[in-house]
Formats: sequence, structure tokens, C-alpha cells
Amino acid sequence: MNQPKNNLIGIHGYNLVGCWDRTHCEKALKVASQIGYSLVEVPVIDPLFDTQATKELAKKYGLQLSCSVGLSEDTDISSLDESVRKQGEQVLMTAVERAHTIGSSIVCGVIYSKLGKYHRAATRQNVENSVEILRRVAQKAQSWGVQLGLEVCNKYETNLINTAGDALKMIEAIGMPNVVVHLDAYHMNIDENDPIAAIYSCHNRLGYFHIGESHRGYLGTGNISLRNMFRALAQVGYSGPLVFESFSNAIVSPFVTEALAIWRNQWEDGEEVAKHALAFVQSEWFAAQKSKTTPLLSYRT
Amino acid sequence: MNQPKNNLIGIHGYNLVGCWDRTHCEKALKVASQIGYSLVEVPVIDPLFDTQATKELAKKYGLQLSCSVGLSEDTDISSLDESVRKQGEQVLMTAVERAHTIGSSIVCGVIYSKLGKYHRAATRQNVENSVEILRRVAQKAQSWGVQLGLEVCNKYETNLINTAGDALKMIEAIGMPNVVVHLDAYHMNIDENDPIAAIYSCHNRLGYFHIGESHRGYLGTGNISLRNMFRALAQVGYSGPLVFESFSNAIVSPFVTEALAIWRNQWEDGEEVAKHALAFVQSEWFAAQKSKTTPLLSYRT
Amino acid sequence: MNQPKNNLIGIHGYNLVGCWDRTHCEKALKVASQIGYSLVEVPVIDPLFDTQATKELAKKYGLQLSCSVGLSEDTDISSLDESVRKQGEQVLMTAVERAHTIGSSIVCGVIYSKLGKYHRAATRQNVENSVEILRRVAQKAQSWGVQLGLEVCNKYETNLINTAGDALKMIEAIGMPNVVVHLDAYHMNIDENDPIAAIYSCHNRLGYFHIGESHRGYLGTGNISLRNMFRALAQVGYSGPLVFESFSNAIVSPFVTEALAIWRNQWEDGEEVAKHALAFVQSEWFAAQKSKTTPLLSYRT
Amino acid sequence: MNQPKNNLIGIHGYNLVGCWDRTHCEKALKVASQIGYSLVEVPVIDPLFDTQATKELAKKYGLQLSCSVGLSEDTDISSLDESVRKQGEQVLMTAVERAHTIGSSIVCGVIYSKLGKYHRAATRQNVENSVEILRRVAQKAQSWGVQLGLEVCNKYETNLINTAGDALKMIEAIGMPNVVVHLDAYHMNIDENDPIAAIYSCHNRLGYFHIGESHRGYLGTGNISLRNMFRALAQVGYSGPLVFESFSNAIVSPFVTEALAIWRNQWEDGEEVAKHALAFVQSEWFAAQKSKTTPLLSYRT
Repeated sequence: MNQPKNNLIGIHGYNLVGCWDRTHCEKALKVASQIGYSLVEVPVIDPLFDTQATKELAKKYGLQLSCSVGLSEDTDISSLDESVRKQGEQVLMTAVERAHTIGSSIVCGVIYSKLGKYHRAATRQNVENSVEILRRVAQKAQSWGVQLGLEVCNKYETNLINTAGDALKMIEAIGMPNVVVHLDAYHMNIDENDPIAAIYSCHNRLGYFHIGESHRGYLGTGNISLRNMFRALAQVGYSGPLVFESFSNAIVSPFVTEALAIWRNQWEDGEEVAKHALAFVQSEWFAAQKSKTTPLLSYRT
Repeated sequence: MNQPKNNLIGIHGYNLVGCWDRTHCEKALKVASQIGYSLVEVPVIDPLFDTQATKELAKKYGLQLSCSVGLSEDTDISSLDESVRKQGEQVLMTAVERAHTIGSSIVCGVIYSKLGKYHRAATRQNVENSVEILRRVAQKAQSWGVQLGLEVCNKYETNLINTAGDALKMIEAIGMPNVVVHLDAYHMNIDENDPIAAIYSCHNRLGYFHIGESHRGYLGTGNISLRNMFRALAQVGYSGPLVFESFSNAIVSPFVTEALAIWRNQWEDGEEVAKHALAFVQSEWFAAQKSKTTPLLSYRT
Repeated sequence: MNQPKNNLIGIHGYNLVGCWDRTHCEKALKVASQIGYSLVEVPVIDPLFDTQATKELAKKYGLQLSCSVGLSEDTDISSLDESVRKQGEQVLMTAVERAHTIGSSIVCGVIYSKLGKYHRAATRQNVENSVEILRRVAQKAQSWGVQLGLEVCNKYETNLINTAGDALKMIEAIGMPNVVVHLDAYHMNIDENDPIAAIYSCHNRLGYFHIGESHRGYLGTGNISLRNMFRALAQVGYSGPLVFESFSNAIVSPFVTEALAIWRNQWEDGEEVAKHALAFVQSEWFAAQKSKTTPLLSYRT
Repeated sequence: MNQPKNNLIGIHGYNLVGCWDRTHCEKALKVASQIGYSLVEVPVIDPLFDTQATKELAKKYGLQLSCSVGLSEDTDISSLDESVRKQGEQVLMTAVERAHTIGSSIVCGVIYSKLGKYHRAATRQNVENSVEILRRVAQKAQSWGVQLGLEVCNKYETNLINTAGDALKMIEAIGMPNVVVHLDAYHMNIDENDPIAAIYSCHNRLGYFHIGESHRGYLGTGNISLRNMFRALAQVGYSGPLVFESFSNAIVSPFVTEALAIWRNQWEDGEEVAKHALAFVQSEWFAAQKSKTTPLLSYRT
């Protein structure tokens, strides 16, 4: 069966390696390519990120790239502390520049606040801070043909955007055409009323989609009805990437462990998970697209 | 909790009684009213149907009425036998007249073919026969303010309309504004690709909705995700009746037993089933309407 | 990813060809083998069935075989007409003999009644007729190392066994150890309260499993939660075959069309459906087996 | 419809009031009783907790009581700081004593660690600390006829027990018969592979059950299949309480806001939510119990 047209199926680099120096970058891209993925999401602000290597190796292995970022306490652009906001803006500007350099058309993730648990609800000032900075970043990104994707995260990982509605509202406030919604099956399972309605509500403002299981392990082993989500994506004609993401504390950086509360080994072998995920996504996405056409009765002549 | 506005919650009369003479009609309407239903679907061509009694008793018990019909081998308007078609047309005309008389705004059900198992796929001539007769019936019905609802049934109960798509196609061929789609949760579970997509595809052409479990017994004890169907109905703003239907061979006519293959006692006590169904539908429909509004984040000032 | 151990993944021969002479048998087995299936279910009483060819070709293509039967009006062993019962018993004895000859360890399907719509509920005499004959057939089968699998079918296709409970009851009455339950996802969706509970209730009496979508088309395009069924199978340690079955009137015999009410083209290309089904079943079955082990927290030392 | 026998349907007091002085206690108990609940879960270590009032008012309003606790940073019995552990043990001892006084047979909740986000995985020492203290608390509780229920919470709210398996393991280590598992639909949706399997795995060690929606708002408006969970509870013969829990920042204490990340108003009117929840739970639990019995075919004589 052919992979469905128009949608790149991708995988997050951290599923395959724990950092992004040249060696690990090559390992991740090589393995992803061998398994059959078309895209790799790269941690564009990893301290060891090797822009040149990433660009060359993606070409070598025939892969598209996307870039993701999770801001930290020190780079939180919603912060009331100006120096923190400046740091954050710089990080985002760098990310956009690197995305442009390596030929990626999007910078997505938690680019509007800290990725991690807050202790208080956000204030209007927090929101305004993010909007103002994201507008400037989006302007620069647009001049380079790069989109920004605001990832809708569950309430334990941000206090600024927990549902598609929150993201659409912020996008409206930013007012730039190259800012899109980045939905994630794992997060939607926690905070959306209805992932189907969420996907419909974004419609052509949806630019990026993360596929993850409810416990972030093997697809199909948890509580998420990927089928219903895929059908909704097929119904709205979603043509963006479908990117698999899974976390195990077999491979994970301390920042991610803390921010995402990864206390378990969901798997030891990231490659096996990745192989299974690709087969799973291909067969379910094929079915979702097929399910759009209900055969009518065949009347005899 | 208040019953949601704009939707009448009803029950099929045969859930409560086995025929429709004056005595059984009164029993059904009284019980339905006491339980709290707002509408009863009446078997308008029952041989013992008492038009005057039905009208008076509905008024007495404060109930709205809808009318349903299931054509038989002898009254199949898709038949190649002209005398059978004439019989069928007469039955439908009578049903429409009675509906008008008792104040019902719809005649629904399997009004386009035999209700029962066919042994061959339909031919184009079968379809054309139904379309031609339904156009005439719809014209008469329109002059009386009555709608026709084409019930989408599973493949074992008709060979003419098995999916929403089939119904919409026939409605287009009939070309009358007062013909609507009548969907049924039980049948959709068997033949639709996706009940959600089916409901969306009908949109404001949907005029009637049957709620039934996968095995036609107690709601919530089978395989149907009523939740997803109700959410789709809420999303498209469906304002028509929601009518519960269940069959047990504790109460069922020989025609229905044969046509619908009712070999089991799903229940002995139709009243208990009906009470549970009303509570179930009320709480799920309330939730479906609530789920349309996803609360945004509350930012502090 | 390796195919999960201990379970043969198979396909019904009629998915690939419309009859079972030598030519079509070879086509079916060759294609099934090329796609990657391990077992083919053969229509052992097809009028053109070529025992010798089936045996040789299965060996050539490295496939296991299972045998299925659907009795007809003329061979219904539950019939009150003795000559019909005799015909039916002869058909079953022949099926068992052929199964033995071709190296199949099971004869399954609707082997206890007509496959098709009845017009009345069964009587105790109907049941007793089936039990008595199946006991004799089972005795012969046992001497040849062949099992009998009673397929639980929906109410429109038999009036004798509609749920796992009905099958277990008949198995108890037959009293032979080589009679097992044959469950089918498609049928369970219509008549079981809960497929999970049905699977649990059969436990090690479950010997054969049919995988089919709610509308009998592409897997994943209908209403069945195969995930939940597969998890239940994994939980009870089911080690029998998982056999895909789909029907389109693109390829189907007149007997099947009538008995199963196949009025639609669910697909034109049986091979594409079969390829997708294998990938779908492999990834879901893998997930179901993985889901049995919930990783505990990893406490640091 | 009668409320199902043997299971008390309850509600968490914080759904109706924000603290537990005498006035708010009376308000909560009165409203819960009027709506029709049989049990109220009380925040037994609320700073304003009025033991005498709670006992008297429960009697007055005909309610059963359960007690729940969430330990804090300062009372975390898994802590490496001895003074913190001592504080925690004292809190638990007090809770058990108060439970005994007010006639509650259980102290449940996050009684084994802090309720809130950790920044590191737990160590073996953390686990041993909790086990040792809980053993002492359980011994005292047993002498008073009180059970301890370990609530399985998602990874963002504790690092010690995230799945039923973790709870069962700790219960084994504690080695006291009066320690039971406390499952919660909301948490299971995030961290269990399969809530059904989790319920089966606890079996008669399951002593308490929290019903909550995926986003902690109105039941039926989120992503949780309560139906499947209820069926599993019915299958294992669960006879303990079913207690509804929902959080909105319309009514919530600062500690809970922070610990549980309550950034949204899921509702303004706790009473409306509570009414709907009771009707919802009653009709679904009734269905779950009914679904245990699949009617067999009724053969005619």
C-alpha cells in the first residue's frame, strides 16, 4: 500500500537519540530514513545543534525537516521579567533563522511560554507579552518563508494555551498569516472537550499535528482514539505533517524529564517503537482517507 | 436538570404496546406521558389504528405525535408489479391523511420499499418506481403541511436505502422540499462508514432521529457510541425529535418479528426500558450540548 | 516488526476469488502468500472444490488452511424435514473428510443451521436436530483430529446462535471436546452486548476468530473497535487464527449475495483490501499484545 | 429506575463548597442530599474541618461519609527529610482518627506522597519511607475499622503511584489487609494502558472509585469512556462507592489550583454539574449492570 499522498509522516528526533550533535543527528536521520519516515522534527535549540550537519544529512537521507522549541523558565516570553523575555525572543529568532537555513518551513512547539508546570493561572499581561513578541518573530519568519506553530499543550505543561480555542484566540491577537495551530493527540486527550470538534474548529488554520498515545508509549496501547482524530483530519482535508512523538526515560534529557514528568520506561528500544508507529499511522491514515467515501448502493440495470 | 430545549424526546408506541386499538393506544400514551416523554411515534397503518382516539388521547396526555410506516411485500412501491405499487401508494396516502388528521407533522420509516430482507440487489427500475410514487405522495403531504422522512435502514431490512448518501440521492431525485432524511443509530452502526460523517452530510436535511442500541435492547448495554452521534447532532444544530426504539419478542407483532428478526427477549418490561432510556437520553443529550462549548482559559487580570 | 508469535493471520479465500476450481484456488493462495498471510480459509464445499490442488498448492505457497461451511436451505441440519437434515449431515461429513485430507485442523462457519434469513424463531426441536447431528459429525472429526467451530452470526443470518452464550450452550449440549466457538467481529457488533465480555466468556473454548469491519469493507473505515476486541483476545491468551473477511459485490457468488445481503461494492480490488488488512491487523495485534504489560514506575536507586 | 444496589453514589465536597467550616459543611451535605447522593467525600484535613458538625449533619441529611487527603510538600511521607515525614504521619493519624469519629470507613487520596508536580523520579528510599509510615498508619486504622485507599494519580500529580500496578505493588510491600486501591477515571485516562485491564487487575483489592471527566468538567463532555470502565467494575463485582469529582476555578482553594493546575472555569454552578453527574452515573451504572446479562435466544417450544 502506498503512503497516502500530501501528508508527510514524521518522527520527533528525540525518539531516536538524546541530543543533537553531528553524531546523534546522523544516527536519528539515518534510522528514520531506513524505517521509512519522510520527515524528522529536530530540536532546533538543542545546545549541540549542528545546523550544517543537519542540513547536509537531511539531504543525504532524503528527509524533510521541521523544527520545534520548548521555552524554559529562563526564556519564557510570557514572563513579567523583561530580561527573561529578551532571552526568549532571542531563542525564537535563532530558531527561525536556523529553520530557514536547514530548509524547514515551520518552527513549532511551546514557543509562547515555558514548557512545564506553572503554579498560577496566567495573567492578561503574560498573554500580551507573548503576543507582542510572537508578532515580531512571525514578521521575521514570514520574510524567510517560515511558519510558526503554536502547540496546544495540556494544563500541566503550560498555562497559556490548553485548547485549540486558546490557540486560535492568540493567533487572532498576533494577527500574522504565518502563525498556525499545532495540535497534539496526547494533549487533546487531556484538555479538549472533543478532539474532533477541535480539529474542525482549526480547519485550515491547522498546520502541524503530533501523534502520541495517552501515556506517550506505543501507539494503540493506550486510551486515544486515533481513528476519530484521523477521520476528522481527513474530513477537513488536512495536508500538513503527521509527526509521531513518544517519550521513555530510556532516552530523555533531564530538562524533558522534569518538564514532562517522564518517570517510566515506556520502551527501551526507540527504533522498535518508531517502526511500529509508522506502520500503525500508515494503516490508520489510509483507512481514515478511505472512510471519507461511503459506497452508495449499486443498483442493477 | 431541564430537558434540553428545541428537541422533543419521544418513544415508539410499539415499545409499550403490541397493537393500536383504542385501549392499547391509551395505555401507550398514558405511560409515555407519565414517564416524561414529549412525543410518541405511532404506527399509523396498524390495522386497528383509531385515528380519533389517537388525536384525543394525545391532547389529553399532552403529547406530540409522529407517524411511521413500514411497507410490506404487498405494498412495496419499488415493486415491478403495478398492482403492488398501487396498494403501496394508497397506504402512504392514507398515512399522510391520518398524520394530518391527528396533528403529526411527519410520516417516516421505510416508506420507499418493503421493510424486510430482499434476495437481490435493487434495480434502477425499482428505484424509479419509488421516486415517482414518493413524489406524488410528497406533493399531497406538502399541501397538508406534512413531511416525509426516508428512514435509512440496514441492508437486511431494505435494498434501496442503506446509508445517508443513498437517502440524499433519492431525495434529490424526488425533488420535493418536504422530504427529509430519517437516521437511526441502530442501522447506522451496521452500514455507515461513520455515523458522525453521515449526520454532517445530512445537515439541515435531517428531519428525524431514531435512538436504538446495537442489539435493540437497553441503551448503553451494547456497542453504539451514542455520545459521538449526539455530539454530531448538537454540532449541526439538529432540532428535530429524538425517538427511542427498542424491540423485544416480549411485545412484538408477527410482521415485525419476521421483518426485523426479533428472536430474543431483550426485556420483559417495556416500561422499565422506556424509563431508563429517557434518563439516558436526557443526560447524554445535555452533555452533548454542553460539550459544544469548550471553556477557554481564564486569564487573571 | 515481527508478526506476533502463536497466531496465524489469515484471509478468507472468497476475498480474492469467486470460486474454488484449481485456477482460482491457485490465484487465491498465491496472492495471499505474496501479501504475507500465513493461512487461507477455504470454502470446503464449493461445488468446484479441488481437494488435491488445494493441498498441493498450500504446500507450494507455504500456507496453513482452515475450512469453512455455510449450510443452505437444502442442507439445514436444524430442519424439521428429515431428508434435508440427511443432506446437511452428508455435507458436513464431506467437509470434515476434506479438511482432514488437505491438512486443515478445523471446519468452522454456520455449520449448525442455514446461513441466511429465517422468518421465525427457532424451536427446541430445531436446536435438538442440530445438536444430535453435530455430535455425530464431531465424533468423526475427532477421530481425524479435526475441530468444529460454531460461528456466532447475527440474527439476520441464522436463528440458532446469535451470541457467544448461545454457542457455549450448544457446545455443552453436544458434549464433545473438539467443538469450539468461532467468533466474528462483524457479527458481535450487531448482537453481543459487549464483545469484550463475549471473548472473556469463551476463554479457552474460543478456537477461531473472524476479523471484519461493521460494513464488511476496509478495516478501520467503519464502527468496530477492533482494538478492544484484540486486547480481550490478548488478555485471554488466544492463540488461534485471526482471519480477515470482507465482502464486496465486486467478487461474490449469488448464494452469498442473497444470504449476506451484499448490495454494495465495498471495493473493486480485493488485493488492495487484503494488503491493507494484513498491515492493519499486524500493527493492532502487536499493540494489543504490548498493551498487556503496563510499565511500572522506574524508581531511581 | 432504582439506584443500583450495593454501590453508594457520592460526590466530593469541594464540588459544592470551597472550605469545610460548619456553614460550608452544612451547605455541601444539604445540597448533596437534596440532589439524591448517598455519600459525600469530605476533606478531612481541611484547616477548618469541624468533626462534630460533620458527624451530626451527615446523620441529619442521611448521608454516608468518606475521607480524603492530599499530602503537601510539608507533609510528604516519602520525603528524605525526617521532620517532613513526621508531620505527614501526624496528618494521616489525625485523618484516620477523624474518619473513625465521623463514622467513615475509609481514608483515601494521595496519602503516600505530595499531591503535586515533582521534578524528579522517585528513589527507592522515597518508596520505602512511604511504605514504612503507611504500615504504621494502617495498623492504627485497622484497630478502628478504617481502610486506607491509595489513589492512583497521573504523573503530573505524584511520582510514586501512577498506575494500578504501582498501587498493588506498594500494597504488597505494606502488607496490611486494610489497604486498598483507589482508582480514578480521570487519572487512568492519562497513565493506564487500559482502564479495563487496570480494574480487572485490582479485582477485590479495589476499594474506592472516583468518576471524573478527562478535563474534570461535566461528565460526558470529554474523552473518557465511562461505559467501558463501568462495565469492568460490574464484571468484577465492585461494590464500593462511586464518587463524582470535578474541578472548576469557580470554586477551588489555592492549594488545589496549584497542585492540580486548575486554570479554567469548567462550570460556574457546582450544583448543576452535580445534578447532571448523578443522573449520568445512575443511568450508565444501571446499563453497565444490565449489560452483564446477554439474553440468550428464546427458542419456541
